[in-house]
Parts: sequence; structure tokens; C-alpha cells
Amino acid sequence: MGNSDMDALRAILAASPRPQTLAERRARMDQVTAIDPIDPDITVTPVDAGGVPGEWSLAPGADQARVLLFLHGGGYSSGSLKSHRTMVTGAGRAAGIRTLAIAYRLAPEHPFPAALEDAEAAYGFLLAQGYAARHIAVGGDSAGGGLTLALFQRLRAKGWELPACGWLVSPWVDLHMTGASIDTKDAVDPLIHRAYLEMLAEAYHSGGGSRTDPLVSPLLADLSGLPPILIQVGSAETLLDDAVRMAGRIGACDGEVRLSIYPHMIHAWPIWYHRLADGRRALAEAGAFLGERLGG
Amino acid sequence: MGNSDMDALRAILAASPRPQTLAERRARMDQVTAIDPIDPDITVTPVDAGGVPGEWSLAPGADQARVLLFLHGGGYSSGSLKSHRTMVTGAGRAAGIRTLAIAYRLAPEHPFPAALEDAEAAYGFLLAQGYAARHIAVGGDSAGGGLTLALFQRLRAKGWELPACGWLVSPWVDLHMTGASIDTKDAVDPLIHRAYLEMLAEAYHSGGGSRTDPLVSPLLADLSGLPPILIQVGSAETLLDDAVRMAGRIGACDGEVRLSIYPHMIHAWPIWYHRLADGRRALAEAGAFLGERLGG
Repeated sequence: MGNSDMDALRAILAASPRPQTLAERRARMDQVTAIDPIDPDITVTPVDAGGVPGEWSLAPGADQARVLLFLHGGGYSSGSLKSHRTMVTGAGRAAGIRTLAIAYRLAPEHPFPAALEDAEAAYGFLLAQGYAARHIAVGGDSAGGGLTLALFQRLRAKGWELPACGWLVSPWVDLHMTGASIDTKDAVDPLIHRAYLEMLAEAYHSGGGSRTDPLVSPLLADLSGLPPILIQVGSAETLLDDAVRMAGRIGACDGEVRLSIYPHMIHAWPIWYHRLADGRRALAEAGAFLGERLGG
Repeated sequence: MGNSDMDALRAILAASPRPQTLAERRARMDQVTAIDPIDPDITVTPVDAGGVPGEWSLAPGADQARVLLFLHGGGYSSGSLKSHRTMVTGAGRAAGIRTLAIAYRLAPEHPFPAALEDAEAAYGFLLAQGYAARHIAVGGDSAGGGLTLALFQRLRAKGWELPACGWLVSPWVDLHMTGASIDTKDAVDPLIHRAYLEMLAEAYHSGGGSRTDPLVSPLLADLSGLPPILIQVGSAETLLDDAVRMAGRIGACDGEVRLSIYPHMIHAWPIWYHRLADGRRALAEAGAFLGERLGG
């Protein structure tokens, strides 16, 4: 791979047994993501975010008046406050802003649109806390990236002011899995494969939603009127083409978008930024992007 | 359009009569691009760049030890030192480096591979001047973007060290014109349409090259081993999908690429950066990218 820190991470992931049950998948997700602690000087505070369990984070010197609402990945059926705490708090430090991570309801117990309802409730909570939309960014990785785009559509439909910007890491936006990289990158992606995605998609829209619903597959959405969006993706990902095609779709809709492809990086690699130089580069890029779009 | 400075530029372009002959096209190109002077404090010096007519530029305080080799657009059959002088010198100022623009030979008088040979000669000239590859960036707009990628392939095939990075504005990389935006953006693009591209493609490969030659259509190339590349494109361009697909191809080949889509911008809009806020933003982005990749 020509990337020794990634090789080391791959070895750790390979050593973890493949999960079988839903409970095992959830446990493994928390286990393989939370291998690095958050910086000890960052304050993390639990909060009821409009009925949704969440937590604030704040690094010393960061601006409390601007905030990143973060929607974690995990295929809409796993992931937690714990799994993404290191990445979220690191992003807040990089951007110099507060973060609010939420534990939205998960499928299959809570299929679509439960996650979207919770994201919307958390956004409403931020407004109620006095945050202007222009001081809010929304971001997420994997399913959280798709959920971010669903939230933007929902807010636009309601006529609400949209957040200042969006940040998507390795977004999953096509629940039909029609991207060529689903197959062409299958051998190099240690985490995300077609059969797994099929299972996740089935669980998420089991509530009656369709995979062609643009709130489920934002790749099919009218994306006009969205705020500027940064998309980051690794080249060793089956979801590479979800990111590329999403950027193209946003451009087709006259939106502002930046797509950054990181060579040899795997799905949602900024989670492991303590051990990956390109994870730190990605957070630095995101931090600069968020800081700039959220104003001084 | 929601973009008043672009509306003003569109009016200027619309007022210029559509050219019919090759001579008229070349004259119009120089006329509509060179409507803003270069900054008076920038020094421009003619040079014989390995047998290719060229010119250096240097802004006060810029670093002479790092250089951008610039390959202008114009469909391989128009464009000149004059047409892109404002954009090139502006890019040099933004990056804080020297620039070398060249007037490579044009089709149909000089079809493929004449332009590529001239680009290669100019690169060899820079090496002979003492520039290390890591202190050279190569960039271009439109056909110049495609030519940049052809040069990278040629240098790689020869076993030469590649430049530090590439910068592509509105690149034309698919001479088969298979991108959906060729049609979907036809009505909003004031400059580039299918029939025109067909004529240009015909002229360029009239020397015997094929449109499927990866040196003519870099979208079809093996792009592994390329340096980091920044691609900038407007959302009001028929060539939008050339840029999007090119980013995807580079990622598929494990390359490092950033794609920035600028809403409502037209083909090669940084040419008019004096009148377009997003032209200045694009040059600032490119300047930061080049400056960072070329080292301090």
C-alpha cells in the first residue's frame, strides 16, 4: 500500500473477529473505533438534545458560539456516542468550535425515518439554544453523511434556514449500491462490502421507506439550494463512487462542493486520526473548511 | 443566476459575435479573454523555453525557485500567451511563485502530438534551468488541463521524476464527449458546445492520433503514480462531468485529488478573476494548493 500507518491499522482490524449478530456488530463497532482516547483537555458534557441523547464537546480556546452537529456512521444500525467520540472531538478542535454528537435511534428497531426525525430534533434543539443557522455546521461519516443530506432536504422542505455548511466523510448515499467501486474496490476495502450494505439497507427501510426515496438515497435527490459541502473519501473504499457521484450531483444542481480523495485511506479513516497522518490531514482540512464557512 | 458579476460577464461574451473561421476563433479568444490587464507590478519576460515560445512572470516577493508551468486552453487550436496572461500571472501571485507560460503549437496546422511535444520540451527546459521536479507544478485550463495529464503520463513513461502537483481548471479530458453534462448544461454554458468540441477534437487528432489514445483523452488513461491534483470546474459548464469523472478516475487509481465545483461559474472562469469574486476565490484556492505542494 505504500502507507505504513494504514498497514498497521489494517492489521488491527483484521485481528478483530468478523461479527455475526446485530449485537456483535454493534459491539465490534465500538471496539474497533474507540481504540484511541480523546484528548484529555477536551470537555465532554452529556445533554438531552431535544429528546435525543447527545453530548457536547469543547476544546480549550474553541468558540462556543459555533457548533458542529455530528451524525455518526454505522449503517443506520450501529455506531454510538462512544464509537465516534475521538473523531468528533478532534474535528471540533481542528475547527475551533463546539460539537454536538447525537445518538439517534438505530435500525432495525427504529427504521427510517427515526434517525432523520432525531437529527431534525437535534437541529431544532440547537436553534432553541440560540444558535443561528449560519453558526451551525452538520456533518457525518458513512450513513451519517447520507443522513446529513437527508436533514438538509427536510429543512429545505420546511422552509427553515439551512446550516452554514456540510461535512461528509465516506458518505453512503446510494442504497441501491450502483457505484462501480462497490465491486472494483471490494478487495481493498476491509470494512464495507455489498452483502453487508444490502443487509443494512434492508434494515433501514424496513419501516416502509423505499430505497429510491431521496431521503434514504440522497444521490437521487434534488440537491439545489444546499449550503457548501466538503466530501472526503478514501481511495480504498467501496463507497468511493458514492462520494464522486454525489459531488457530481451537487454540481449538476448548481451547488458548491469540494471532493477530496485521500489515497489508500479506508472507510471513515479520520476515526483513527491518532494513528493515521492522512486522518490528521483530513481533520485539518475539515477544520479549515468549517471554520471558514462558519465565520469568525 | 443569483450571481451579478457573472451576469455582467455573460453580457460581454454575448455581445461578441460568434466566430466562423479559424482565424476569427483565434482572434475572438484573445479578445474576450484579455479584457483585463495584468497587475502593473508583475514582471513578464519573453523566453525561448526549449524551442517553444514562452514567457516568465514574477510578482514582487514571489519565490523564483518554484515555478508553475502553464498550458493554456483553447481546444488545442486557439489560445495564446496573450489570452491567458492575466490568469497565469494572477495564479503566480496567488501561489507566490514564478510562472512559465508557453505558446505550444496549435492544431490543425500542428495536430497531436505537437502540443504534447512542446509541453515536454518546456518541462525539460525547466529542469535544465535547475528546477527540481519537486519545485515545479504544471497546470492548465480546458485543453491545457488535458495536456497537463498527457504530460504527466509521458514523463512517467520516460521514467522522469514527476512535478510536485497538477492544477486543472475546467479540464477537457474526454474527446468522445460522453459526459452527461455536455447535454444537460448545454443551455447554460455560453462557450462550449458539442458541435464545437467535435470540430476541435477532429482537428487535434487529424495527425493520426485516436480519440481513445489516453494521451488525447486522459479520462481513459492509467493514472496511477500521478502527483496530487487540484481540479476546479464551474457548475454552468458542459465540461462539468469531465472534471467529476476525472476526479473519480484518479481516485480509482489511488491518486490524490481535490475537486472543487464553483456554482454558476462558466468555462475557465478564473480568466476573468478581476471581475468575478469566485474567480478570485478559485485563484486563492489554487495558490494555497500550489504553495503547499511546492514546499516552502
